[in-house]
Amino acid sequence: MTAPASTAPDPLNTAVLTITCPDRGGIVAAVSQFLHNHGANIIHSDQHSTDPQGGTFFMRMEFHLAGLDLAREPFERAFANVVATPFEMDWSVHYTTQPKRMAVLVSRYDHCFLDLMWRKRRGELNVEIPLIISNHEDLRRDAEMFGIPFHVVKVTKENKAEAEAEQVRLMHEANVDFAVLARYMQILSGELLRDFGRPVINIHHSFLPAFIGANPYRAAFNRGVKLIGATSHYVTEELDAGPIIAQDVIPVTHRETPDTLMRLGRDVERQVLARAVKAHVEDRVLVHGNKTVVF
Amino acid sequence: MTAPASTAPDPLNTAVLTITCPDRGGIVAAVSQFLHNHGANIIHSDQHSTDPQGGTFFMRMEFHLAGLDLAREPFERAFANVVATPFEMDWSVHYTTQPKRMAVLVSRYDHCFLDLMWRKRRGELNVEIPLIISNHEDLRRDAEMFGIPFHVVKVTKENKAEAEAEQVRLMHEANVDFAVLARYMQILSGELLRDFGRPVINIHHSFLPAFIGANPYRAAFNRGVKLIGATSHYVTEELDAGPIIAQDVIPVTHRETPDTLMRLGRDVERQVLARAVKAHVEDRVLVHGNKTVVF
Amino acid sequence: MTAPASTAPDPLNTAVLTITCPDRGGIVAAVSQFLHNHGANIIHSDQHSTDPQGGTFFMRMEFHLAGLDLAREPFERAFANVVATPFEMDWSVHYTTQPKRMAVLVSRYDHCFLDLMWRKRRGELNVEIPLIISNHEDLRRDAEMFGIPFHVVKVTKENKAEAEAEQVRLMHEANVDFAVLARYMQILSGELLRDFGRPVINIHHSFLPAFIGANPYRAAFNRGVKLIGATSHYVTEELDAGPIIAQDVIPVTHRETPDTLMRLGRDVERQVLARAVKAHVEDRVLVHGNKTVVF
Amino acid sequence: MTAPASTAPDPLNTAVLTITCPDRGGIVAAVSQFLHNHGANIIHSDQHSTDPQGGTFFMRMEFHLAGLDLAREPFERAFANVVATPFEMDWSVHYTTQPKRMAVLVSRYDHCFLDLMWRKRRGELNVEIPLIISNHEDLRRDAEMFGIPFHVVKVTKENKAEAEAEQVRLMHEANVDFAVLARYMQILSGELLRDFGRPVINIHHSFLPAFIGANPYRAAFNRGVKLIGATSHYVTEELDAGPIIAQDVIPVTHRETPDTLMRLGRDVERQVLARAVKAHVEDRVLVHGNKTVVF
Repeated sequence: MTAPASTAPDPLNTAVLTITCPDRGGIVAAVSQFLHNHGANIIHSDQHSTDPQGGTFFMRMEFHLAGLDLAREPFERAFANVVATPFEMDWSVHYTTQPKRMAVLVSRYDHCFLDLMWRKRRGELNVEIPLIISNHEDLRRDAEMFGIPFHVVKVTKENKAEAEAEQVRLMHEANVDFAVLARYMQILSGELLRDFGRPVINIHHSFLPAFIGANPYRAAFNRGVKLIGATSHYVTEELDAGPIIAQDVIPVTHRETPDTLMRLGRDVERQVLARAVKAHVEDRVLVHGNKTVVF
Repeated sequence: MTAPASTAPDPLNTAVLTITCPDRGGIVAAVSQFLHNHGANIIHSDQHSTDPQGGTFFMRMEFHLAGLDLAREPFERAFANVVATPFEMDWSVHYTTQPKRMAVLVSRYDHCFLDLMWRKRRGELNVEIPLIISNHEDLRRDAEMFGIPFHVVKVTKENKAEAEAEQVRLMHEANVDFAVLARYMQILSGELLRDFGRPVINIHHSFLPAFIGANPYRAAFNRGVKLIGATSHYVTEELDAGPIIAQDVIPVTHRETPDTLMRLGRDVERQVLARAVKAHVEDRVLVHGNKTVVF
Repeated sequence: MTAPASTAPDPLNTAVLTITCPDRGGIVAAVSQFLHNHGANIIHSDQHSTDPQGGTFFMRMEFHLAGLDLAREPFERAFANVVATPFEMDWSVHYTTQPKRMAVLVSRYDHCFLDLMWRKRRGELNVEIPLIISNHEDLRRDAEMFGIPFHVVKVTKENKAEAEAEQVRLMHEANVDFAVLARYMQILSGELLRDFGRPVINIHHSFLPAFIGANPYRAAFNRGVKLIGATSHYVTEELDAGPIIAQDVIPVTHRETPDTLMRLGRDVERQVLARAVKAHVEDRVLVHGNKTVVF
Repeated sequence: MTAPASTAPDPLNTAVLTITCPDRGGIVAAVSQFLHNHGANIIHSDQHSTDPQGGTFFMRMEFHLAGLDLAREPFERAFANVVATPFEMDWSVHYTTQPKRMAVLVSRYDHCFLDLMWRKRRGELNVEIPLIISNHEDLRRDAEMFGIPFHVVKVTKENKAEAEAEQVRLMHEANVDFAVLARYMQILSGELLRDFGRPVINIHHSFLPAFIGANPYRAAFNRGVKLIGATSHYVTEELDAGPIIAQDVIPVTHRETPDTLMRLGRDVERQVLARAVKAHVEDRVLVHGNKTVVF
């Protein structure tokens, strides 16, 4: 199956540099001068400061690699010495020709899952998807349709610890960089999060912080709200309290029931999750405490 | 000062009938047959049922008065006897030539207040505004610009009971049908609500039920949400928990501070409050428990 | 493959009555009285009048069939005699247990097509899809994944008449009630439309009437608009000029190219088309001249 | 009248540098190095390139003036010599303590006009408004309420040339930097635009390029669109064809008439115009051919 050529461009031969550091004068000058000196032409640049007097500074720079006068390793070493260390930077460089590796965890709902698979196929998400993990068989055929290994790990009250250990093992074995809970209907333990040790993105079916926890559409119905929404956030040990990446809502009326709210909400959920995953994949999200900067 | 003619049409000579009753067969037929028999041509009709089997039925019918074969009083009496009593209806009729009388309570913020004044002047809101009550002098000149009596009733911890009694007295004296809190920065006591005995509409500066209480923009900033919103609701004794009439949100980014969130939020607040007031004024809102039907 | 139970409810045993007729007093009374007399409990009712004095009246009533005292045929005959003929109604009744039959025409773009398939599978669209017709092989495997016969009818300048005849033959043979052009990249001739003789729904990738014709994203880029959109409409002989069913837009910035506009636009196109198809399938769309009433 | 303190902050002591030049390596480095060398701490930075290989480069940098080691004139001269000339830049520096001077032209509609006045009063728009020009008396009292000189210049077919000359004279005399047509219902001649010689911002009541010219709400009604919108753009000699700064839409249904569309549209018009004026005032809009870059 081929997508129309114009909608699936080759990933550009570019790199993305992200920086978090204490704010002070001269950072932009130092970084841009360094990149220019080494032949890296800047394509996009974003910066943010929580407070120009003594706050935290965030930056994302995307640049062409074509004219670079150094190989990646010496380039990164030089950057560390010349720029990053003097400015006490927390930084990283990602190369668009090395897509991030993403695990997807699903239960029985297909909408978020299918949307991610389709966007990957269309070239909208620059990721590799080496595996899908589910606690149910339901979505196996869909996964196979997209040619992706599908692992069922049943989770019960009794086997939760072993099941999570198996999930972490599978994800580490597949060398994934991050995981996405595409309406995965299980709460991850703090132990799993620590053992996995990489970002996990969730989609919650409400405009957090309203309607934390289970059954948000029922709660929204009971409160009589005129908007329902979805929130994508990084998973932390505290349920539904991690740093928010993306949110959206749609208007609803008194005509809806909890069931039709759920149905309408699916369109928001899949859009919001896709937006968050795309931002993460393109290194646009910098986490700062319990909040995000999304460039 | 004249608004352009086409935007301030004369109120039509119509009436609005609103009905709440136990659902059962034949309601629509009985109502529409009655109206037809008496020469009332239906312009708009909306109905809703919480559950066609034994739920609650809601209806709003707007009809022309031109061909009515009865005066208002006998018409309403006949409706009560022939239709309303047999179907156990909670009902009312409002005539668009008798605009509702609205009190506006304000503090120092001008945005919601001015928006209501402008809409009234342009003919968008079919209301009379016999008085404005404030706990500050700030908006007196604006009120006078619109030719509306402006009463300052200072509220302190010590005089709260007397101050509220004075507010109720002023509103009753002015014979108002409902009151609007246009960012009135005081909590109304249950006693005031009972003494006033008519609907009170509030605008809360968050997408309730998130960020109940004071300082919602600060709370939104702290949580790092990507949307801020506003909620207009009927005031009940429980703070920020009354039936929601209208809600909306706008997207925000990490670039905002609590101050700029507040600034951005003003545009949502005034739009949402105006929408709720307009719906109330046009008898489009039927309250049912802690929820609303908005036709 | 099973969707979660709660999201694929059995179609209710209901019927939808749609009416278009000259406006005059007593229509609502006559229709609701007739339904009540025959034991049909009304669930939803919507009406619209272009002008209460001498305009056109539109109505959609959804009612339960459980208590009906007549079989379908005598029920419809009685309605024709008692109500429809006296009021000169153009009318029809559709039964939700008899889903409409939909043909889907596609070329090489998969997004609108897959979205319709997913929604059908999840129970969001109460349709049968007996066939898919394409002028390319590309989407065969996707069609087969959903178990739907896939017919390739190549269309060239030389064979256009025969190709269209074959398309009409296939659709008539499959007894379809309407067709959807899910980014089908061919213009249908007036002859095909007449021979097919049933509604055809298209999705155009702009907010019509802006950017009629080919390459709307390129045209949007050249004009420097800050919104791009999509429009779903019934197909008429005049290109992109048929009655509009649904439209939506998304904001865009100077950063986009014609290619990225096309990519962003896909999300709007598929949502707008799905909304239009759902409205059509649920008999919510009444065409009046070159405009629609969408209940 | 005092606005609450927190919503009307003193303009910061900052400057905005905007640059348009041929794209090539080293621009960001040169500009940021220059600013850093002279003690200017960068607060915000945005850049855009139409094509990193040989396209046009756009930049907006906002920086603190507190630490600057030069007065404004020598600072600008140094920038011209050291950076701007070598890179062939079209550039300017604006100081936030020197607000732009804005003329407002109105006819009889008050909504866009009042919204701008109110935002100015609230401190949302960092402008001076030395005069208002109208072809009608209607809004004089509102203008006076805001303390702004109101000039009536009647425009007829016969006196158009003299009337426009008088308008230009008034605006030049008041030393305005740009003009806003806040639903000014007259077409400006090319001669006026040339004589005035400064930017003019208009609000058109449709989502251009749909419904160019007069009566767009009537045209939208006739076409049966499901969205209406507004477009703010710089005025050029060709009607409704200038570079677009901001656009937005709202959904509408078959229930609306041309009159109610106009009424609903007012809320979009005033928001879109305010957004465009704010962007212009903050030097966020760079014009490039018939398009804009809006940072």
